[in-house]
Amino acid sequence: MIRNRDRKEAAPASTMQRIVILGGGFGGLNAAVALRRADAEVTLIDRRNFHLFQPLLYQVATGGLSPGDITAPLRGILRKQKNTKVLLGDAVDLDAVNRKVILKDGGTIPYDSLIVATGARNFYFGHDAWAADAPGLKSIEDATEMRHKILYAFEAAERESNPDKRRAWLTFVVVGGGPTGVELAGALAEIANDTLRHDFRDIDPTDARILLLDGGARLLAAFPEELSLKAEKALLKLGVRTRVHVSVTGIDAHGVDIQTANGPDRIDSGTVLWAAGVAASPWGKVLSERAGATLDRQGRVLVEPDLSIKGHPEILVVGDLSHLDGADGKPLPGVAPTAMQQGAYAARILTGAKREPFHYFDKGTLAVIGRAAGVAWFGKLRFSGFLAWLAWLFIHLMFLVGFENRVLVFLQWGFQYFTFHRGARLITGPGEGGLDKT
Amino acid sequence: MIRNRDRKEAAPASTMQRIVILGGGFGGLNAAVALRRADAEVTLIDRRNFHLFQPLLYQVATGGLSPGDITAPLRGILRKQKNTKVLLGDAVDLDAVNRKVILKDGGTIPYDSLIVATGARNFYFGHDAWAADAPGLKSIEDATEMRHKILYAFEAAERESNPDKRRAWLTFVVVGGGPTGVELAGALAEIANDTLRHDFRDIDPTDARILLLDGGARLLAAFPEELSLKAEKALLKLGVRTRVHVSVTGIDAHGVDIQTANGPDRIDSGTVLWAAGVAASPWGKVLSERAGATLDRQGRVLVEPDLSIKGHPEILVVGDLSHLDGADGKPLPGVAPTAMQQGAYAARILTGAKREPFHYFDKGTLAVIGRAAGVAWFGKLRFSGFLAWLAWLFIHLMFLVGFENRVLVFLQWGFQYFTFHRGARLITGPGEGGLDKT
Repeated sequence: MIRNRDRKEAAPASTMQRIVILGGGFGGLNAAVALRRADAEVTLIDRRNFHLFQPLLYQVATGGLSPGDITAPLRGILRKQKNTKVLLGDAVDLDAVNRKVILKDGGTIPYDSLIVATGARNFYFGHDAWAADAPGLKSIEDATEMRHKILYAFEAAERESNPDKRRAWLTFVVVGGGPTGVELAGALAEIANDTLRHDFRDIDPTDARILLLDGGARLLAAFPEELSLKAEKALLKLGVRTRVHVSVTGIDAHGVDIQTANGPDRIDSGTVLWAAGVAASPWGKVLSERAGATLDRQGRVLVEPDLSIKGHPEILVVGDLSHLDGADGKPLPGVAPTAMQQGAYAARILTGAKREPFHYFDKGTLAVIGRAAGVAWFGKLRFSGFLAWLAWLFIHLMFLVGFENRVLVFLQWGFQYFTFHRGARLITGPGEGGLDKT
Repeated sequence: MIRNRDRKEAAPASTMQRIVILGGGFGGLNAAVALRRADAEVTLIDRRNFHLFQPLLYQVATGGLSPGDITAPLRGILRKQKNTKVLLGDAVDLDAVNRKVILKDGGTIPYDSLIVATGARNFYFGHDAWAADAPGLKSIEDATEMRHKILYAFEAAERESNPDKRRAWLTFVVVGGGPTGVELAGALAEIANDTLRHDFRDIDPTDARILLLDGGARLLAAFPEELSLKAEKALLKLGVRTRVHVSVTGIDAHGVDIQTANGPDRIDSGTVLWAAGVAASPWGKVLSERAGATLDRQGRVLVEPDLSIKGHPEILVVGDLSHLDGADGKPLPGVAPTAMQQGAYAARILTGAKREPFHYFDKGTLAVIGRAAGVAWFGKLRFSGFLAWLAWLFIHLMFLVGFENRVLVFLQWGFQYFTFHRGARLITGPGEGGLDKT
């Protein structure tokens, strides 16, 4: 058993402000970095020892990049920041009265100000059992599990003689037509059409069926309609069939039950991938129970204009866990730029800046569809195709943490672009190459 | 359930020779590649979908490289080789009379000639229970588990207030002073002295104790004595203490029990790494029971001068699983060059070459000790230091499969050399960042 040391508490009370940050994602890490010159004692707590660049998780899931390429050790990023301490720990509860965060192992971390940036998790609309057969895409482990499922399906198809079963192994269903679903479906199509094209002897990977399901009226609901249509066309060109107005009623190891305008239907598939829903992290509930926060239907915390919880100006909630309405009356989007801007804002107001309402600066939205195609939406500027893809490439490389990661990712994308090769096609994890997972 | 298709058997009998290869390591893959122009039907069976460059596994275990960097998909390597089929399968038994390999799922694969190249596995001298607390280094999963243990130990030390427990977390024991043990210990020292140097606030990673234990009289027993001494000195300079004539009598989660010339002793340590022993793969036993092969004490198959099993000229055993004495009367070393040469030899004699005795061409042996130091032994040429390190670098890059991998590894080594940075320092796997693994 490791117990958290409380030496800091035993020492003479510091007069310096103690700022505790929960979560080392885009929001929390940006807050920490923005506090680098602050006259404060900063503690960043995360369950993992690394920052994860979530927008590229789907590239790990599809064998294009390695986990190490899109992660950076939190300690490494903050090593030179002497006022900041990184703690590998699982914060599970809050004592809002005595201002202490409680860790799973019983340790407590006192704070003067608290920034909660614990983000979101996969959400199956109440059907948690679906998670076993339809992995979502929030963690590195999610991504390697998806990679396992995808690559294994082709292996299983190669060994299957029953044509129906083989067809099911070659059927890939992506549930959810947001940016993650669109990007996943596009990458899947590339794997089937290009990467694996000549790899098998008894199946033709280009026979793979890739279905993208969405419950709404169109893909990329947050984008303007013209870009949704362009995305659907680009996907169709790659061989991805989009089905809208489809709701999923069941998922098991052999396929998906759906409800369509024409009634119920069934899709036999060995590989169902979940990109449909996220819910707030359990810290929503903690803040509601311990600090009286109000939650929305997705479990996000309704925050004041300064990102604080009503009655608790010392607790700020940033990123995917927070719900703040934008100028258009809709909640700010759960994307990296929102979290980053909120993290930096939280750092500013905790170090003396006036508590003017947080204002989100929308830098635009992007999604890519396979190789060299994409849709982009920067306010009035809307474009698609190669230019959108280039913009996506540039922006993602720019924000990827670590010079080394940037160079490695850039190189691997270069290789992929010219050779269709995906270097990280490993089937790893439990079950010795997945052979027992049939 | 996936069943293996037996369509090939149902089809009209082919007149082409069917060559089945078990294992896609150095031996099996080299045999397959050497058969690329053979008038034969080649099937390569492996439980994993990738070839693993084992000599660099310790770099994955120490966060220097990602799993994807030292692996290459078998299908990708062999995609253009139209006479060769890759089968993801677990070969568990043999019908030597009817010449069939039996898979775990019940499928059978008929052969005319069989190349068994299933290699070696970790061996704990009969104490299999030690595996839980002292991972070995044979698979990618072994390497990420080791990485987990090493990085987590520093995290645990940072959180530990009890000085004895903290010291145990900062004590790293490597069991076995062969090339793998020496390389691991050297890399561990670099992590502690350089990579993590400024990462913590309450511990000083340079306080870490790294102990390298060996049961024999000196490190690198297979090398000339002068190089053993040079290796020991180079390790000492990095802060690694070598203890020879030490046998391990127990391993648990909190340390190692040892027997020395001065009697029994105990080393408290949170991180024990196993580099002491390998044994032949279970196929030694299969060949002994089904084809009458004779095994040596390590379970390796005693092969004829043409690598076949007595009475079964159609079964060849190559690589770590085979035992053939060299010109000096000692068994050929269980290293990659032996396996590669034997794989190529097997391919030659199965395609009509005369069965002249296999002759091993010793290209020399190398081991590196941390950054820019090493020992090399090329026949009469023996050297150490920077030159040996450069030779090691060059040779390993040369044999790494895949141009992309070579470039990526070269770049990452360049980064490491100039910045001491190790990019792949992820704590991944079960237990959410290892927090439950205390």
